[in-house]
Amino acid sequence: MSDFEATSDAGRPASDGPRTRVESDALGEVRVPAQAYWGAHTARALDNFRVSGVPVGAHPHLVRALARVKHAAALANGEIGVLEPHKVRAIAAACRAVAEGRHHEQFCVDVVQGGAGTSTNMNANEVIANLALEHLGHARGSYEHLDPLDDVNRCQSTNDTYPTALRIAISTALGELCAELTLLAAEFAAKGAEFATVVKVGRTQLQDAVPMTLGREFGAFGVTLSEDVDRIRETLPLLAETNLGATAVGTGIAAEPGYAAAAVRHLRALTALDITPAADLVEATSDTGVFLLVSGVLKRTAVKLSKVCSDLRLLASGPNAGLAEISLPARQAGSSVMPGKVNPVIPEMVNQIAFATVGADVAVTMAADNGQLQLNAFEPLIGHLLLQHIGWLTHGCSALRTLCVAGITADRGRLARGAAGAVGAVTALAARIGHEAATEVARDASRTGADVVDVVVRRGLLDRESALRLIAAVG
Amino acid sequence: MSDFEATSDAGRPASDGPRTRVESDALGEVRVPAQAYWGAHTARALDNFRVSGVPVGAHPHLVRALARVKHAAALANGEIGVLEPHKVRAIAAACRAVAEGRHHEQFCVDVVQGGAGTSTNMNANEVIANLALEHLGHARGSYEHLDPLDDVNRCQSTNDTYPTALRIAISTALGELCAELTLLAAEFAAKGAEFATVVKVGRTQLQDAVPMTLGREFGAFGVTLSEDVDRIRETLPLLAETNLGATAVGTGIAAEPGYAAAAVRHLRALTALDITPAADLVEATSDTGVFLLVSGVLKRTAVKLSKVCSDLRLLASGPNAGLAEISLPARQAGSSVMPGKVNPVIPEMVNQIAFATVGADVAVTMAADNGQLQLNAFEPLIGHLLLQHIGWLTHGCSALRTLCVAGITADRGRLARGAAGAVGAVTALAARIGHEAATEVARDASRTGADVVDVVVRRGLLDRESALRLIAAVG
Amino acid sequence: MSDFEATSDAGRPASDGPRTRVESDALGEVRVPAQAYWGAHTARALDNFRVSGVPVGAHPHLVRALARVKHAAALANGEIGVLEPHKVRAIAAACRAVAEGRHHEQFCVDVVQGGAGTSTNMNANEVIANLALEHLGHARGSYEHLDPLDDVNRCQSTNDTYPTALRIAISTALGELCAELTLLAAEFAAKGAEFATVVKVGRTQLQDAVPMTLGREFGAFGVTLSEDVDRIRETLPLLAETNLGATAVGTGIAAEPGYAAAAVRHLRALTALDITPAADLVEATSDTGVFLLVSGVLKRTAVKLSKVCSDLRLLASGPNAGLAEISLPARQAGSSVMPGKVNPVIPEMVNQIAFATVGADVAVTMAADNGQLQLNAFEPLIGHLLLQHIGWLTHGCSALRTLCVAGITADRGRLARGAAGAVGAVTALAARIGHEAATEVARDASRTGADVVDVVVRRGLLDRESALRLIAAVG
Amino acid sequence: MSDFEATSDAGRPASDGPRTRVESDALGEVRVPAQAYWGAHTARALDNFRVSGVPVGAHPHLVRALARVKHAAALANGEIGVLEPHKVRAIAAACRAVAEGRHHEQFCVDVVQGGAGTSTNMNANEVIANLALEHLGHARGSYEHLDPLDDVNRCQSTNDTYPTALRIAISTALGELCAELTLLAAEFAAKGAEFATVVKVGRTQLQDAVPMTLGREFGAFGVTLSEDVDRIRETLPLLAETNLGATAVGTGIAAEPGYAAAAVRHLRALTALDITPAADLVEATSDTGVFLLVSGVLKRTAVKLSKVCSDLRLLASGPNAGLAEISLPARQAGSSVMPGKVNPVIPEMVNQIAFATVGADVAVTMAADNGQLQLNAFEPLIGHLLLQHIGWLTHGCSALRTLCVAGITADRGRLARGAAGAVGAVTALAARIGHEAATEVARDASRTGADVVDVVVRRGLLDRESALRLIAAVG
Repeated sequence: MSDFEATSDAGRPASDGPRTRVESDALGEVRVPAQAYWGAHTARALDNFRVSGVPVGAHPHLVRALARVKHAAALANGEIGVLEPHKVRAIAAACRAVAEGRHHEQFCVDVVQGGAGTSTNMNANEVIANLALEHLGHARGSYEHLDPLDDVNRCQSTNDTYPTALRIAISTALGELCAELTLLAAEFAAKGAEFATVVKVGRTQLQDAVPMTLGREFGAFGVTLSEDVDRIRETLPLLAETNLGATAVGTGIAAEPGYAAAAVRHLRALTALDITPAADLVEATSDTGVFLLVSGVLKRTAVKLSKVCSDLRLLASGPNAGLAEISLPARQAGSSVMPGKVNPVIPEMVNQIAFATVGADVAVTMAADNGQLQLNAFEPLIGHLLLQHIGWLTHGCSALRTLCVAGITADRGRLARGAAGAVGAVTALAARIGHEAATEVARDASRTGADVVDVVVRRGLLDRESALRLIAAVG
Repeated sequence: MSDFEATSDAGRPASDGPRTRVESDALGEVRVPAQAYWGAHTARALDNFRVSGVPVGAHPHLVRALARVKHAAALANGEIGVLEPHKVRAIAAACRAVAEGRHHEQFCVDVVQGGAGTSTNMNANEVIANLALEHLGHARGSYEHLDPLDDVNRCQSTNDTYPTALRIAISTALGELCAELTLLAAEFAAKGAEFATVVKVGRTQLQDAVPMTLGREFGAFGVTLSEDVDRIRETLPLLAETNLGATAVGTGIAAEPGYAAAAVRHLRALTALDITPAADLVEATSDTGVFLLVSGVLKRTAVKLSKVCSDLRLLASGPNAGLAEISLPARQAGSSVMPGKVNPVIPEMVNQIAFATVGADVAVTMAADNGQLQLNAFEPLIGHLLLQHIGWLTHGCSALRTLCVAGITADRGRLARGAAGAVGAVTALAARIGHEAATEVARDASRTGADVVDVVVRRGLLDRESALRLIAAVG
Repeated sequence: MSDFEATSDAGRPASDGPRTRVESDALGEVRVPAQAYWGAHTARALDNFRVSGVPVGAHPHLVRALARVKHAAALANGEIGVLEPHKVRAIAAACRAVAEGRHHEQFCVDVVQGGAGTSTNMNANEVIANLALEHLGHARGSYEHLDPLDDVNRCQSTNDTYPTALRIAISTALGELCAELTLLAAEFAAKGAEFATVVKVGRTQLQDAVPMTLGREFGAFGVTLSEDVDRIRETLPLLAETNLGATAVGTGIAAEPGYAAAAVRHLRALTALDITPAADLVEATSDTGVFLLVSGVLKRTAVKLSKVCSDLRLLASGPNAGLAEISLPARQAGSSVMPGKVNPVIPEMVNQIAFATVGADVAVTMAADNGQLQLNAFEPLIGHLLLQHIGWLTHGCSALRTLCVAGITADRGRLARGAAGAVGAVTALAARIGHEAATEVARDASRTGADVVDVVVRRGLLDRESALRLIAAVG
Repeated sequence: MSDFEATSDAGRPASDGPRTRVESDALGEVRVPAQAYWGAHTARALDNFRVSGVPVGAHPHLVRALARVKHAAALANGEIGVLEPHKVRAIAAACRAVAEGRHHEQFCVDVVQGGAGTSTNMNANEVIANLALEHLGHARGSYEHLDPLDDVNRCQSTNDTYPTALRIAISTALGELCAELTLLAAEFAAKGAEFATVVKVGRTQLQDAVPMTLGREFGAFGVTLSEDVDRIRETLPLLAETNLGATAVGTGIAAEPGYAAAAVRHLRALTALDITPAADLVEATSDTGVFLLVSGVLKRTAVKLSKVCSDLRLLASGPNAGLAEISLPARQAGSSVMPGKVNPVIPEMVNQIAFATVGADVAVTMAADNGQLQLNAFEPLIGHLLLQHIGWLTHGCSALRTLCVAGITADRGRLARGAAGAVGAVTALAARIGHEAATEVARDASRTGADVVDVVVRRGLLDRESALRLIAAVG
């Protein structure tokens, strides 16, 4: 039913020795693989949630962010004196290991989970607790020495740590997207420069309009994408608002005095992000507005990429009976009987990434809309979809740049003929031959199907060279 | 704030005489224009709902359906003896007038309304009651003689009459859409026949592929649209299921024995639709599944229309530097400086109708998803959007047929050149010249950019005429 | 087929005199109502586009913006010497009249139109030309004195004036939305202050959690909506970027030197908006990114309103077997047999506005995605949907504030019982009675179903008054 | 960037021996892992498409369907004499192995791929060819003995085999969904029977309305879901239409005479599905209508599941300050300080599955809308999303049934109190005490807040027992 093998093997012992240990929670005893760093809550979650087969560990940005939030909380708890120093040190060591990329396979709960992220938070609490226990020389599961809830989750609730981790994860993932988007925009700009003198006909409503250059067309692709780097970056300060200390509903009821401020300060240092406390913690705990905003901006980026890729496919259509203005690099063999057939597989891939992103935006919207009262229970889906599609877009930008745009070539001859043949080219000549003559030329060319330049020359208005030079000057 | 003038002027007296009358409801007294057929509830609804400026009367299918439901209910109530014969006759006369298209301006409540359709139902009850009172020789508002609730709404609830009327309205509107869609499909089929011998190159992934005919391309447009006539018709039996008699939550608590069966029977006769009672009235009262189904099928039709229109615009691109295989009839003057520029304004209009339909489907989906417990309070939006977009699609089909498709012409020369030039044309020759020779020809043509036919002739494999005949035989 | 009567009667003569005049364009002669200010192009557009029945004039923001763009263009053309002073004065007078709200019924082209806005632009050119002709003492249609294209549209293209007008229209419409949203947020804040001491139980995942106050809950409603005022305002500088002077594809090919800068300067003065020229006119001419951005932010606002309204309906559920924490003011009579039934019709209306806005966002997205090469032909749908839903949201905020929120009352007794009864209330006592005792109390209360306060008192841990005071202190 | 490790390790040799072999295609030589059954085209596709990290093999329904299509094609080619018997036997053996579930890890191309499914088709061709070569005692890659294209893909094109396989895969996946949906509906029906005598108050617009039974409420959940089994099954005949033999654009240009009919006949036998040839192969090759239809029906099922789950969460809200009519089985430990807190994690999971399905429908819609001319290049995304979400829904139904619905219990006392207290209960008494008295009772109860039953008894209209019996009789 799900796409992948159940992930609950994570932590299963490969060798001999006791294969399971017993943990217990409010519902009773649970058997857990002896080698697993995760515990009872995670075990139940593995039974409850088996939808997608995609574990939380598939989102490394999220796992690292969870580690940093837990790290900051431990430091804060140590600072205000509610967590003993040796526990602080052990938890910090565990969090550092996870933040450095280790043990991500232990984050095995399915990304599509009920419970508003409780299982992801508990998965993190358990893994960090057992890593910390190991650091302290204790056996896994000996929570009397250091407890997932009482120590690792101290002063916290899923409802403040989980969205905080999600925001950080999304921020860092967006950073990668911005980097790739910037490179892609630069590649288009470079192509724009390369094609600066290539005259072509501009088209409106798919109809030949007036001359322009291929350089300006590609330059515009770069500009339109680079604008989205700005839009994405504008969401970062909003993502950096945290409700740490809010606990269950935003009243901070179980958090110790001084905790919130200290936790925010430590998190800021650990993440190098400008983390700030939300102004209204009740609002911040139930609100998903920032995720909607990010999703909306991602959708905009997706639509722009899709439009650009659709244009590239149009411009490369042919090779004979299409626009055929540019050629995309061949990435795969075409049909055996049509050796020259080069399919635009990379732009097609990016179009699909874009469509998926738009779909995800609708899913995120419904999840946000269905939130009730003091909490939105559907943040796990929101988080998964945003992280998945930021990743897809990031990859799409990279592939588009390296596997497609960088190798695009122009058919200058065909482009020049298109420009010269367009009736709209007459607009480039009007200033020289006069508006009335220009209108006559246009009517003549339109009626006879002849090239504007031919008509102008035939009528003795301009020599061919001058006409072509005027048209080429429009870009 | 809303797009149109408030519609509450409907019924304002043009001449002298008392300008208002006073009615009352559970909340107290309300002043109503003296000449209005509507009453207190409608007056409050006009104050409460002023969002869209679109009155219920803008959906004549819905108003007629409401009249028929009220008519059937009155006949049923007369038959089981809970409504006096003179009242039955008066209500029936009123309903007939409305069903025939009169007094629709009295249905003035905004289509975007809270209350699950209560205001539309009460608007209908009031208008029909006052028309019936007039029929009986009584003044408007003299409800002691015939009451909107006790008589017109007898044995009914908004929760059974409103969705029943909506289903009937959608059915009859879909009938009009099917009629126009059938005509449009037939026009494409006719064009397919007209272009049966016009050879062209077929394209996959926008790349030249193998020869086909323009006839088959246009024929396929017809086939794909005619399939949707079938899909739309398949929803009609489901739309014909009614929860009449269910009253508030489906238990039929305030309906008299015998009422439901009689009402369904009369409604079947009045509408000439095969109205059937729903199997589970509780389910039927809260369920919006049929609206989702209709919306999904409309979206499919919209997407097909959009795809066809996008193809038409592509095929008509040019006239010089585009595919330019067909010409669409000119509907508007082009640019003053580009006299030959014919913009594909009708297909563009239909594309936009399609996009709006897809958007409406999402709105309908959210409205359906947000239904709670025994009733979906958001059926007014669902009903408005479905009726609006069925209407838009119906008009779009009509306009596309009469203003565009019927006048399309083909550039046979250009199409033939495209077919002959495509490397894929070699596949049409392989059976004659052999697979190995065909592959050689394809490589040669692809490398040199020469036409396949030229290469075949040059290599002495076939004479030009034979080659062209083989290619032309592919369609 | 469309919801409204065709609007082409606008301008039909009410009295005698010649009923039509003849105009001509590239396609030939057209008869136009003699009194109409619009002309040949508009007449053809009325025939071509009859989908929605909603005329452009239904968007007064757009009509006023068009007038200001045409006004600025005329002033610029006068300044650079390509339009004679008396024409500038006449056009300016016409534009002022339209900007002041007159003649909007002359903007009669359907909002759902092909042609990328050409028909709206030409409708404006024609109306303004004929108003200007009237100003100069000439008959309608005597374009030899002042021409819609050569004079009113001088140095312009639909492709720069139309999106510029759309951006200005959306900006001013958003201003109204921000004003209403601010008032609504303030009303929630006021209610928050009114309910500051009303203790209740906070809920997560619809389950009773920990105590909070109704004041903080309503305060959070205000905060979350006021944040969207900020988000909306952040789009204004982007909306203020114009591609005036770009003409057809962004190369400025038919615009006179100096025109663009002068037009932008005059437009800034006329609109009092900080209009700036776009950095890349080719990009700006095809790009719809700003519309996607606005649509995304509107969707966010819609989802927040929807969530708040769903919460209000939940909190007001009952009156007996629901949460029944608050009462919404009765706006309409309930059922005749259930006199106390107050349906939450205003929040339900706002929910539906929100769903429609989300749907519109998808339609806008598809329209943006389908743009091709140098122009997006689907801006008319984008513009219509954005303006429509900004209007709906604006009205929804106003109605929600005045007809619902302002009259909300709280059932303090019920709320207090809910807070005291929640097991989570023990968290408010833990600091005083100790964590271990608190856990014991919670288990006891959870097992027996007894109130936490009762258990605490029974166990002699606190007297009732102290317990209630501690719980009340959480907000 | 992608969620998972690149899957290109499939087939990497674990032991020694040459690690790679060399294959070649039109673009040149490619190194392939020596043990891989896949070849050159797959290798290039692994480089080109790395978006999702989800391999085609993650959709076993699709891999099995591809094997059956290739199997049918080989049998047909053998039958018409264009494929030698030993090759037919070898290919058939290979296809059987894949259809039985072996070698799925060899289907390693990313599900998000450009090229309209070419890479999936070629991946299948290569794996089957090399399995067949192994069967014949030849080394991998020795295609001179049996070729992926010339033999396995004989008479085929991606454009007919890929959509055919997709349709079969979706059909069989839908079969599993129908099975689980049927079981879930039956579980709700069983609960309906269990709760048949449990009287409660029905709610409309979240307000207390009239009495009903919990049995009818749960029964309706079952009915509404079972209806969707019918809707899903109605899509199966449409899914069973195949364009086998259409080849590239639907003209069947490279297919041998007799192939199409034979292939369809064999495929029918191999799949036990009622496979039929499409009426118009050109239409069938570019059309994605059936995928839109399936997606729309899935969305309907999703919305129904979401509505039911939202209702379950509402009905289980509390335990104190909510509706608290039913209890869901505890699946995870609640908060440490709130031992009784049972979160509705399974319904929440299903809600999220539903939201994701709605989002996927929008992505599918955009992919369908963007198809151009003779082929839709975006079927890989369509196929992936449909198969993924059919799987998610199937799992959601199973989990909802076994982990939630089966264990639901009712709080009969609370439900009875709710029914008796609702003013609407008076409607159940009206037939006995008269309409006028009923109205008086309702007003009294509504004004004083007293229970209807109390008022009736106090006024001496009925004894308590009779009143309760009448109310209980409504269901």
